Amino acid sequence: MVSQRGVAVARPVARLIDELAKLPGIGPKTASRLAFYLLRTSRDDAVGLAEAILEVKEKVTLCTVCFNTTEQNPCAICADPGRDSRICVVEEPLDVVAIERTGEYRGKYHVLHGAISPVEGIGPEKLKIQELIERTQSERPEEIIVFTNLDLPGEATATYLHRLLTPSGVRVTRPASGLPVGGDLEYADEMTLGRAMAGRRVL
Amino acid sequence: MVSQRGVAVARPVARLIDELAKLPGIGPKTASRLAFYLLRTSRDDAVGLAEAILEVKEKVTLCTVCFNTTEQNPCAICADPGRDSRICVVEEPLDVVAIERTGEYRGKYHVLHGAISPVEGIGPEKLKIQELIERTQSERPEEIIVFTNLDLPGEATATYLHRLLTPSGVRVTRPASGLPVGGDLEYADEMTLGRAMAGRRVL
Repeated sequence: MVSQRGVAVARPVARLIDELAKLPGIGPKTASRLAFYLLRTSRDDAVGLAEAILEVKEKVTLCTVCFNTTEQNPCAICADPGRDSRICVVEEPLDVVAIERTGEYRGKYHVLHGAISPVEGIGPEKLKIQELIERTQSERPEEIIVFTNLDLPGEATATYLHRLLTPSGVRVTRPASGLPVGGDLEYADEMTLGRAMAGRRVL
Repeated sequence: MVSQRGVAVARPVARLIDELAKLPGIGPKTASRLAFYLLRTSRDDAVGLAEAILEVKEKVTLCTVCFNTTEQNPCAICADPGRDSRICVVEEPLDVVAIERTGEYRGKYHVLHGAISPVEGIGPEKLKIQELIERTQSERPEEIIVFTNLDLPGEATATYLHRLLTPSGVRVTRPASGLPVGGDLEYADEMTLGRAMAGRRVL
C-alpha cells in the first residue's frame, strides 16, 4: 500500500491509513478521510483517541462470572447484591447496555460472545456456553432469559440452550416477538406479522 | 454519554466509544462496534493503530512550499529537480495522491486545504491562496492547472483563482469535464451530459 502512494503522501500518513483500513467496515477511502482528519484535528483530540485505545487494551478484561467487559472482577452487575437471581443471556456486551437502558430488568447477565453459526464455523465450544451451564448449576437462577438475536444464529443458539438447560429444571424464556413499537404494519415482513398475530393479547 | 450507560459497560470502553464518535462520519453505533472490535482484536493491532495516530501528530508537517503533508521540508515532490514548472492546484492532500497515481503529470502541486464556500464560512483567507500568488510570482510556472472539485465550492475557487492570476500572465487551466470513463450515459446528470456534448472532440 505505502509504496503505491509513492512520494505523494508522507509515510506516517500512509501507515495510519493502512492501520485504519484494518478496522471492520472501514474501506481505504474512509481510512484516508479519517487519517487526514486526525492530521488536521487538535493534538488533544488525536492523542485522546490513541490513549483511549491503549487504555482499553490495558485495563478492560472480561468478568469471569458473566463475561461482560469490566475493569473490576467480578463486574459491577455481578457484584451488585440488589440484582435478582435471573440470568439474561445475550450475544454481545453491547446487548447488556441496550437492555440496561430499558430499566425493565434487575437480574444478571451472561455474555456468550457470539451465536452458533455453522456457516461461519462458530460452534457451541467457541461461545461461553459451558460456563453458562456451570453457572446455572451453582447459582440456580429462577429464570434464564435467552435474549439472543431473532436471526438464524440467534434462534439456533436459543434452541440449543433450551435443550441443554431443560434437564436442570430451570425456566428458560425467549423475549416476545412481534411488531416493533412505532413500527409500520406495511413495512413488516411476513414472519414478524405472523408472530404478532400468533402472540396477540386481549385488551 | 458515559453516565448514561451506567455500570453496563466498563469506563475505558465508554471513553473509547466517545473518542471514536468524534471522528467524522462515525456515529455512536459505529463507534461502539469499532470499540468492541478493538477490545477483541490482538494487542499488536490495537497498539499499532494508537501508535500510528501519535506518529502522524509527531512527525508529519505541511511542506512550506506546496502545503502537502510531509516528513521533510520542502517535501519530496517540491525537492525533486525532475519535476517541471507547472503547478497543479488541489483542495486536499489526497487529491495529490489521486493525480500522482495516474502517472500523467510530472509537475508540482499546491494544496489549498479546502475550497471557497460562503455557506460554510470558508473565505479565500482561510485557504493557501495568498501563498499560491506569492509562489506564482517567484516560481513563474508555465501553467497553473486548477484541479479543484467540479462542485460549487470547487468551481467558485477556480473562478476566483482565475481572476486573481490573470494579471500575472500565467496560463490558467481547468481539467476536462464530461462523461467518466466506463460511465453509463443513462445515469449521467444533465450538467455532465451538457458538458460532454459541448466539449466533444473530432475522431
